[in-house]
Amino acid sequence: MAGNSIGQIFRLITFGESHGKAIGGIIDGCPAGLELDLDLIQKDLDRRKPGQSNLTTERKESDQVQWLSGIFEGQTLGTPIAFSIPNQDQKSKDYSKLKNVFRPSHADFVFQEKYGIRDHRGGGRSSARETASRVVAGGVAKQLLATAGVQIRAFVTAIGQTEVSLNDDAFGQPENELRCPDESASEIMRQDILNAKEEGDTLGGVITCVVKNCPIGLGEPVFDKLHADLAKAMMSINATRGFEIGSGFDSIRMKGSEHNDTFRNEEGQIKTATNNSGGIQGGISNGMPIEFKVAFKPVASIKSKQETVDVDGIQTSVKIEGRHDPCVVPRAVPIVEAMAAITLADHYLRNRMSRI
Amino acid sequence: MAGNSIGQIFRLITFGESHGKAIGGIIDGCPAGLELDLDLIQKDLDRRKPGQSNLTTERKESDQVQWLSGIFEGQTLGTPIAFSIPNQDQKSKDYSKLKNVFRPSHADFVFQEKYGIRDHRGGGRSSARETASRVVAGGVAKQLLATAGVQIRAFVTAIGQTEVSLNDDAFGQPENELRCPDESASEIMRQDILNAKEEGDTLGGVITCVVKNCPIGLGEPVFDKLHADLAKAMMSINATRGFEIGSGFDSIRMKGSEHNDTFRNEEGQIKTATNNSGGIQGGISNGMPIEFKVAFKPVASIKSKQETVDVDGIQTSVKIEGRHDPCVVPRAVPIVEAMAAITLADHYLRNRMSRI
Amino acid sequence: MAGNSIGQIFRLITFGESHGKAIGGIIDGCPAGLELDLDLIQKDLDRRKPGQSNLTTERKESDQVQWLSGIFEGQTLGTPIAFSIPNQDQKSKDYSKLKNVFRPSHADFVFQEKYGIRDHRGGGRSSARETASRVVAGGVAKQLLATAGVQIRAFVTAIGQTEVSLNDDAFGQPENELRCPDESASEIMRQDILNAKEEGDTLGGVITCVVKNCPIGLGEPVFDKLHADLAKAMMSINATRGFEIGSGFDSIRMKGSEHNDTFRNEEGQIKTATNNSGGIQGGISNGMPIEFKVAFKPVASIKSKQETVDVDGIQTSVKIEGRHDPCVVPRAVPIVEAMAAITLADHYLRNRMSRI
Amino acid sequence: MAGNSIGQIFRLITFGESHGKAIGGIIDGCPAGLELDLDLIQKDLDRRKPGQSNLTTERKESDQVQWLSGIFEGQTLGTPIAFSIPNQDQKSKDYSKLKNVFRPSHADFVFQEKYGIRDHRGGGRSSARETASRVVAGGVAKQLLATAGVQIRAFVTAIGQTEVSLNDDAFGQPENELRCPDESASEIMRQDILNAKEEGDTLGGVITCVVKNCPIGLGEPVFDKLHADLAKAMMSINATRGFEIGSGFDSIRMKGSEHNDTFRNEEGQIKTATNNSGGIQGGISNGMPIEFKVAFKPVASIKSKQETVDVDGIQTSVKIEGRHDPCVVPRAVPIVEAMAAITLADHYLRNRMSRI
Repeated sequence: MAGNSIGQIFRLITFGESHGKAIGGIIDGCPAGLELDLDLIQKDLDRRKPGQSNLTTERKESDQVQWLSGIFEGQTLGTPIAFSIPNQDQKSKDYSKLKNVFRPSHADFVFQEKYGIRDHRGGGRSSARETASRVVAGGVAKQLLATAGVQIRAFVTAIGQTEVSLNDDAFGQPENELRCPDESASEIMRQDILNAKEEGDTLGGVITCVVKNCPIGLGEPVFDKLHADLAKAMMSINATRGFEIGSGFDSIRMKGSEHNDTFRNEEGQIKTATNNSGGIQGGISNGMPIEFKVAFKPVASIKSKQETVDVDGIQTSVKIEGRHDPCVVPRAVPIVEAMAAITLADHYLRNRMSRI
Repeated sequence: MAGNSIGQIFRLITFGESHGKAIGGIIDGCPAGLELDLDLIQKDLDRRKPGQSNLTTERKESDQVQWLSGIFEGQTLGTPIAFSIPNQDQKSKDYSKLKNVFRPSHADFVFQEKYGIRDHRGGGRSSARETASRVVAGGVAKQLLATAGVQIRAFVTAIGQTEVSLNDDAFGQPENELRCPDESASEIMRQDILNAKEEGDTLGGVITCVVKNCPIGLGEPVFDKLHADLAKAMMSINATRGFEIGSGFDSIRMKGSEHNDTFRNEEGQIKTATNNSGGIQGGISNGMPIEFKVAFKPVASIKSKQETVDVDGIQTSVKIEGRHDPCVVPRAVPIVEAMAAITLADHYLRNRMSRI
Repeated sequence: MAGNSIGQIFRLITFGESHGKAIGGIIDGCPAGLELDLDLIQKDLDRRKPGQSNLTTERKESDQVQWLSGIFEGQTLGTPIAFSIPNQDQKSKDYSKLKNVFRPSHADFVFQEKYGIRDHRGGGRSSARETASRVVAGGVAKQLLATAGVQIRAFVTAIGQTEVSLNDDAFGQPENELRCPDESASEIMRQDILNAKEEGDTLGGVITCVVKNCPIGLGEPVFDKLHADLAKAMMSINATRGFEIGSGFDSIRMKGSEHNDTFRNEEGQIKTATNNSGGIQGGISNGMPIEFKVAFKPVASIKSKQETVDVDGIQTSVKIEGRHDPCVVPRAVPIVEAMAAITLADHYLRNRMSRI
Repeated sequence: MAGNSIGQIFRLITFGESHGKAIGGIIDGCPAGLELDLDLIQKDLDRRKPGQSNLTTERKESDQVQWLSGIFEGQTLGTPIAFSIPNQDQKSKDYSKLKNVFRPSHADFVFQEKYGIRDHRGGGRSSARETASRVVAGGVAKQLLATAGVQIRAFVTAIGQTEVSLNDDAFGQPENELRCPDESASEIMRQDILNAKEEGDTLGGVITCVVKNCPIGLGEPVFDKLHADLAKAMMSINATRGFEIGSGFDSIRMKGSEHNDTFRNEEGQIKTATNNSGGIQGGISNGMPIEFKVAFKPVASIKSKQETVDVDGIQTSVKIEGRHDPCVVPRAVPIVEAMAAITLADHYLRNRMSRI
């Protein structure tokens, strides 16, 4: 009810404030007998962690996951898989001057209004640090889905003014620092991020996620349409502003006769000639690649002085110190993948109930 | 689990196939003591119903809601509010030739694959007719929210190639046939829809929804962020392709210093100078107007002959007869409002648990 | 949240006040492709309905179920199965004098305190009439379980002072009016009920339920133990006071060495020598017959004058007129079976998720 | 879905195998602003822990709870409260010979059948060690309820052949080693337990729980009746066999005229003359003391040699070594209190939604 869980069968609950003792979570509902490669999960965590390159915050967080239960001799037991990531390198003092002031476009104000109390250090529960737990659970979900052949990969397709479209061969390419499959665009993005960093400013961007080999039939036809649950999962990531499936907002300028994806039988497999549906029709996967986009606004932690109010409502200004990301979009790639994996794993299991 | 419910406290479950005996639903979790104006709810149903004008399908469905329980002497009892809408004017025979063929960009194919059985008449459970039940529940939710002063209104802001932006005074304007607050744009849209109808083709569009006087504090900080739940609610409506909150996809081209909404104290009320956040920060309403957009693809039921396959996978073609909408966007306005109301009513009640 | 649903995968929500327009419910989560014999379900309803014999209330309620959705050409569609039972023969006027007075050991007082409003006619939502909807859903659940060979049957094993134990051959016997497998005990019970009826008094009793051929593995090891969910399901039936699984309260007088059920291999099947566990160990079915007991208190509606208070707290007295059952236990047999079936059907489906 | 959570608003999820790295849990839905006395919670854990006296197992488990999140400067934040209890003093080797054999009346067999894999060491997930996490969450729930004046206390009222009834002044008495309020009965029970221990045998018993000052209105009228949820909560505790509310199974021998609790106005408070309802009518608390009983079977771990089968189904015998309790009933008292507190805290918060 308090909204710290996602999924119905494959279900993740996360806990932790950014400057408390630890963050972590429990995965409930992962079936027994799944062989887990824990190193692969740590690798996804490393793709998310701060301090990977000069494009990200200099904050170092080793983000070593500790597994507490649910795994025995390398396999899942069918019982809750609990894990924690101890908090380290906390410069809580950096935040002491933010105790009584609300940072613009942060959750400080609404948190105080809603709960009457907040852990002001580093965003507390609203810190994007919480997403590390999602990456852990997403790693388990990816390995569950891999048993059915499902592959998930996300890409940076826009940062600031630079946008690229996705080639068919992007899926197979190695990942660069920006997680953008277009090398020349990546160069511009890199420079734009460094410039923003220099200015103490921040940039947003777009992540495009592609799911291959998704079985037909995932998703439920009414409220829990697969793209509705994907939309929720994505919009639950910090700093997201928009979601598009398939043709997205562009669809509005097409006529039905242009937009419809006609069926054809390709050697026994039913495919569609185009994929404006983004792999999902009537809320249910149709076997074509699932494709969706997520918009991330520029990070709210900027270095310049901003007008604001304090906890007593007095007009004041704030200058945010500390080590913040000029652009989180590349680091958000494994988070998008993780949330896609959790959503799909849940629907993959739910679909076991469709037929007698 | 089967995905026919939405909401956690204020919870709607719907039932019904488009050509079965009835559609309807149960609202569970509406508090006792709410005075209900049932005529107001019927009016919203009338805004949604087919056959309102020559811009919509000629199908006549009277869509009279029958209240079965939960209301006593004009007030809610705190018990389940059940309602049904009998199905009428069913030309099921129109569909007999669609029994064995999959209409492109419809749910026929995935439904058959998922369940191994389907009611092929008129889309069955995947028919947009199901949304009538949402409008009923949304009407109850609106009246619950009205006790807290919340107002919800949605507008058509794009159809096909024609897009408009929303004026501040749109909220107070009377509603035209297109539900678009811009009269001259409406004229173009009307003509474009009539042209599409003539051609047997279809158009998509955008609906923008505005919520005024939303209390501060609705939404939960992690997975059940208010805009995440709104995104899910909207993307669960048939034919939606995208969702944007506040600055949406445009945010990616802004810098943090441009995008941040600075706080100011306006006569004791904390407001933000801009509203790029769309009234929601950290997933929690901040008291500013909530604004979001929903993209609707063009309707899949077009009159021209389309390539497809049949239930045996044999390549064939299909020509969809029957009476279909050239553009559903104006009729979708009360559905968007209803889903917004259901989502907000749920979070309004959930927020009662925030503090001791 | 408002507590009108039960089950997680196979899920029933019920609606309706006893003197409103209708009662009914929605079954969500029944898999597609189940062939349904609707007459069999009506027969269970007839076993529950009032006016079956001179042992029950003379109230006649035909209780004809109307199916609204989810069934197509005799099979389930995998979509919500909605049904309603119109209310008839409502002598609401009988209740007008109860409008302002609280009947002892009824829900009138707590309902008024909780909600501030109530439909005082015939118990409203708290009327045992609500259980008719459970019998309908239980009928569907029974047919789902039957595909796996599961058989459920309940028996009256005590009424008032008369108690019997269950023979092994009870399961195969035809059902008498009392639903008690012991004919001579039945005769005493029958006379005791007629005497109580004559006195305007009421009797309680015990129902014992047996489930045969339950697959091994149903139930979850921690909170959702199979017997915990059965206990909840049974205690949610009106007028229940106690629940026992297997050896029940008698177990406390046994030593571990007497109580333990040792395993043995009977021609390839693992069985236990005794069944003190009642077919469930560690919360999970072990393949032995599931056996549990439910205690029903005497009905609260008695004819003699009782002390009470009115809605203003003024001390007064009440004499309950109307047509009430002297003993509901025989009529509760199909309700116990239905709640057992719903609980088992839910766990039967949940168990599909245990393994990769 | 996997059944490791309980509660809807105030919700506990637990994790951990008895011989894994840690056990623990997350409480989600505790409102913000609750001042927590953590020592009080540790005291309840100490009442549950093994090795407290010579009546219990000699296993020493210090069971020190570590708080990971959700508490800031002594108050709850409204965010998830995570905690863990590291596993220590694990003599896993004691269990190596049980790896391939099923202990009678334990969960070994059903676990293996359900999941195809199990952590055989010490019962794994089915170990009663899991209940330590319930005691932690119950401690938080007790403090939440205390803000509304609610008091919960449980007592041992039977062990083996010795049964006592509860005096009115039991609630105020200090707790002895047996947690039985009758000193002379306690002496017999103590001796019986020591005899059983000597014989390597085990005893069961009954715990009676009393809740005072429960507000009127907790519980929901249909499936989530307060006593139905209490029944589930209690029957989810390891080794329970029965549950009774109020008059329980004795009610069946009373007539309605004897059993009904007539109302009376005592200085402005509506009370009942008797309390056969056990404080709950129609599933909703009526302000009288809530009273229920829970039966615990004798512990399954006995020292004598027992017939059984191994994982290959081969008939064999087993002799359980290790340090086990001759009677867990006194140690189960804080568990019963904890589960009552969790259930009531949940319904206390749920009841905030009853009225507009």
